[in-house]
Amino acid sequence: MNISHIEHIGIAVKNLEESIQYWENVMGLKCYAVEEVKDQRVRTAFFMVGGTKIELLESTDPEGPIGKFIEKKGEGVHHLAFAVKGIEQSLEDVASKGVQLIDQKPRRGAEGLDIAFLHPKSTFGVLTELCENKNDK
Amino acid sequence: MNISHIEHIGIAVKNLEESIQYWENVMGLKCYAVEEVKDQRVRTAFFMVGGTKIELLESTDPEGPIGKFIEKKGEGVHHLAFAVKGIEQSLEDVASKGVQLIDQKPRRGAEGLDIAFLHPKSTFGVLTELCENKNDK
Repeated sequence: MNISHIEHIGIAVKNLEESIQYWENVMGLKCYAVEEVKDQRVRTAFFMVGGTKIELLESTDPEGPIGKFIEKKGEGVHHLAFAVKGIEQSLEDVASKGVQLIDQKPRRGAEGLDIAFLHPKSTFGVLTELCENKNDK
Repeated sequence: MNISHIEHIGIAVKNLEESIQYWENVMGLKCYAVEEVKDQRVRTAFFMVGGTKIELLESTDPEGPIGKFIEKKGEGVHHLAFAVKGIEQSLEDVASKGVQLIDQKPRRGAEGLDIAFLHPKSTFGVLTELCENKNDK
């Protein structure tokens, strides 16, 4: 697998507006986009810090993945997303090494990236997203 | 506060050697250092990905902070560390905005950085480390 950098860090929050205020006013970062991802049942807010994004995730449905996460674990870091070259090959590669895939094939995520998740049971507890920006090519 | 980038992501693991193997053989990153930090009761392993480090943390004491974290939450992301310019002023700044400090003043952390932690109760669930490499100056 060929990882270039950490594309973003996903953070589950209860209230997107209050969290945006914290990351802007206390941490001094600038929110540059708010986007709803309906099939994930979340509203997201993005900040850039160095070459990595902070992605805040507020659930729009208590039964959605972020709603369930917060109910179980509370607010906090939800996943790490790594930018890779060749996401399809990367998925085959990690699966061949015993990693359990949540997404067997890439799907479309926020900001138009191709994304796929790996199951935290096989990644030592870290919900891991692989992503590739094919618009870069 | 003036954050330049995400310095590292701290990940709590049960077994450092098994986790190093995962991050090397599956994720394709290279472990460049293993260090024991006795006052934190951890052994750490470092990987570089883009401009950010992955810091694996194995507890050397069930009663230490990482031992307790794993007992409560399991393996996974433990903290996010942000590189700042002027860590003393940054601490005063965030405290004046209502953030609860774990470390009132910077102390010496892994790799010789000056570090201080902010309490996750006042950072929307993210255990946050500020750090400054004064050797850079």
